[in-house]
Amino acid sequence: MTEPLRVAIAGLGTVGAGVIKLLDANGALIARRAGRKIEIVAVSARDRAKDRGVDITRFDWVDDTGGLARHERADVVVELIGGSDGPALTLARETLKQGRHFVTANKAMIAHHGLELARAAETTNAALKFEAAVAGGIPVIKGLREGAAANEIGRVYGVLNGTCNFILSKMESEGRDFGDVLAEAQALGYAEADPGFDIDGVDAAHKLAILASLAFGTRPAFDQVAITGIREVIAADIAEAASLGYRLRLVGVAEANGTGLFQRVHPHLVPLDHPLAHVAGSLNAVVAEGNFVGRLFFEGAGAGDGPTASAVVADLIDIARGEFGPAFAMPADALAAEAGADTGDRRGRAYLRFAVADKLGVLAEIAAAMRDAGVSIESLIQRGAMPDGSVIVAIVTHEGPERSVAAALDKLRGSPSLAGEPMWMPILG
Amino acid sequence: MTEPLRVAIAGLGTVGAGVIKLLDANGALIARRAGRKIEIVAVSARDRAKDRGVDITRFDWVDDTGGLARHERADVVVELIGGSDGPALTLARETLKQGRHFVTANKAMIAHHGLELARAAETTNAALKFEAAVAGGIPVIKGLREGAAANEIGRVYGVLNGTCNFILSKMESEGRDFGDVLAEAQALGYAEADPGFDIDGVDAAHKLAILASLAFGTRPAFDQVAITGIREVIAADIAEAASLGYRLRLVGVAEANGTGLFQRVHPHLVPLDHPLAHVAGSLNAVVAEGNFVGRLFFEGAGAGDGPTASAVVADLIDIARGEFGPAFAMPADALAAEAGADTGDRRGRAYLRFAVADKLGVLAEIAAAMRDAGVSIESLIQRGAMPDGSVIVAIVTHEGPERSVAAALDKLRGSPSLAGEPMWMPILG
Repeated sequence: MTEPLRVAIAGLGTVGAGVIKLLDANGALIARRAGRKIEIVAVSARDRAKDRGVDITRFDWVDDTGGLARHERADVVVELIGGSDGPALTLARETLKQGRHFVTANKAMIAHHGLELARAAETTNAALKFEAAVAGGIPVIKGLREGAAANEIGRVYGVLNGTCNFILSKMESEGRDFGDVLAEAQALGYAEADPGFDIDGVDAAHKLAILASLAFGTRPAFDQVAITGIREVIAADIAEAASLGYRLRLVGVAEANGTGLFQRVHPHLVPLDHPLAHVAGSLNAVVAEGNFVGRLFFEGAGAGDGPTASAVVADLIDIARGEFGPAFAMPADALAAEAGADTGDRRGRAYLRFAVADKLGVLAEIAAAMRDAGVSIESLIQRGAMPDGSVIVAIVTHEGPERSVAAALDKLRGSPSLAGEPMWMPILG
Repeated sequence: MTEPLRVAIAGLGTVGAGVIKLLDANGALIARRAGRKIEIVAVSARDRAKDRGVDITRFDWVDDTGGLARHERADVVVELIGGSDGPALTLARETLKQGRHFVTANKAMIAHHGLELARAAETTNAALKFEAAVAGGIPVIKGLREGAAANEIGRVYGVLNGTCNFILSKMESEGRDFGDVLAEAQALGYAEADPGFDIDGVDAAHKLAILASLAFGTRPAFDQVAITGIREVIAADIAEAASLGYRLRLVGVAEANGTGLFQRVHPHLVPLDHPLAHVAGSLNAVVAEGNFVGRLFFEGAGAGDGPTASAVVADLIDIARGEFGPAFAMPADALAAEAGADTGDRRGRAYLRFAVADKLGVLAEIAAAMRDAGVSIESLIQRGAMPDGSVIVAIVTHEGPERSVAAALDKLRGSPSLAGEPMWMPILG
């Protein structure tokens, strides 16, 4: 057996402690699999004395996190600090510059600076790996980078945020409204006190930008992701979707269709016969559609210390085995700088929901707006009264360009007949 | 860009032709991803003149398949002949002996001779890769070997045979009996004229033996797989299962629980809230349960020329990138020779079905046999009459040792009250 792979860990939150626990529990097995021991030599975090449930006195303590990049015994630095910039980015740059390998769970940093870091890694022949950055324990980076590498990928999409899926699943099973379930999720620790990154779709968008790059051979383009979270979803949307044979999921979708790179995070209606409809609770799932392999579906725990540690250590095992190459499946300079696609050209079916005043002529106004914009209606349900006395009108359109639907909504927006903003959701096709 | 990776293909059936088509269609993209071109240089098959929908005159034709192992321009030999022994095995041995890489879709050969071939590959530092041997296009070998490598895997299981799942799905959706659906599947080309390998569970068992080795670090032990196929499943089993909230699937299950290696292919009742219950038609799916990552679920096309070619070429890309190591995740000599587990010790719930004569006292006889063997009954349904006038008694047991159920069935077997062999199926827990 060769020399151990020596690891320095920056950041000892639940994931950092999880990595230590994992290597303690499975170290012997991992040494058999990796052909060498994986050994933590140094750690750095804000608070040395904090009780993390693991003994860290065995490791060198480094006060200045940035110093890990130059720790003389470390072959790899594992970054679990978080944040797209700041100390995490400084550490990444410095580690790769030193020719040391770099493993991270930091989706924001990779989405924003992945291209720069991939170049830096290539310059010094270091590994840059981030399996834990997308969909937690599910090996979907590997699935795209290697497993599906023989395919032209037409579309990659998935349920990428466990907090949102937990909230939507609970709204669905208990018929409750968003704000109510969010408050409970926060109380239970399933949602952050400041939940915006999750529920507004930013976290899912970071992950989607990374998946898109791997799938299509394009540069990570987080700024091109159109993002809508789940704040505006109401219980009635989920009930109407269910009555039509759909479940509501926050889905990130990326497509490269020749006219540009399309990336969108948005609540979708998912047909019951699609596997994403069955992704329950806080699970994550990713689908990749390849021109030879067809549809691949990966599901598992998208967060949590155990699953995330599993992905981090999988990266370490790859490095220990010497089985690594360009971070985004091809050299950074081979990644295409693709422009964003015009979403108006997209064709699909959509769900529209209006909260309207209960008065004469409202339905005619909506129907006329649809007709004038050329939106063909497949089904329309007017139902019940909301707590505020307004009425719900839910529409499913036939397939057509998104541009037409947007025009109809523009026409209606601001009408005194509407009790609030109309809701538009694509139906996953 | 470095030299191309030069490939020789043995066997030009649908999969062999699929590999050629894939490299023709996606070659430029693959070269970007792999960092070098993947180039077919030689082929060998039974019939040179056969129309395969691809031009093979560009490649060296080798009459003697075994000669590919010594083809001077080939870096890799891809074996798509099939058969656990014979020319495929000879080719594998000779190729690896020459220090050339070897890629195969041959589950039977890897299940039977994987250990020997892994040793041979290590001796010459050649790659031995077989992603296509299990679950077609789904990167599940990679998922276990690398993606989940940080975990102690407690159990690996899945729907591993698309023909069986197609038949069971169709029996379910159309309420038809086995023989009837099999005949249709054969007419449509979904089942072989000689379907035994598929429907008797042998094909699934080959795949399971490979998965178990990767998951547990044990030697492939096909001979230890307990195999029961789907011939004895009747429409009434599927209907009773459905009424109880289950779907019927042929599931291969492997567990390493400290008392030995448990491997079984058997029809199972799968609860509707388990993702395997939603694996429809000819799809395959694999679940791995790791001690840190939790439950990972992979689904996709388990057969067909496109998906299988996708897996074969994924292996070639790994080789082109230099990202390969021991075939079974660890050196062959590190794989444990684990004895088979005693299945009688297993605890679980089970479904039992009896076709009984419609006469006084039969139910009492069955109930007494259960009581005497200590089998506790959770539910019992006696229903309707079969075409032959017999009556169906379906039982779900409480959790208990399999030994007790076996004793009860032994007692009943041969009783003049029974119209046929009792059916026993575990309930996936």
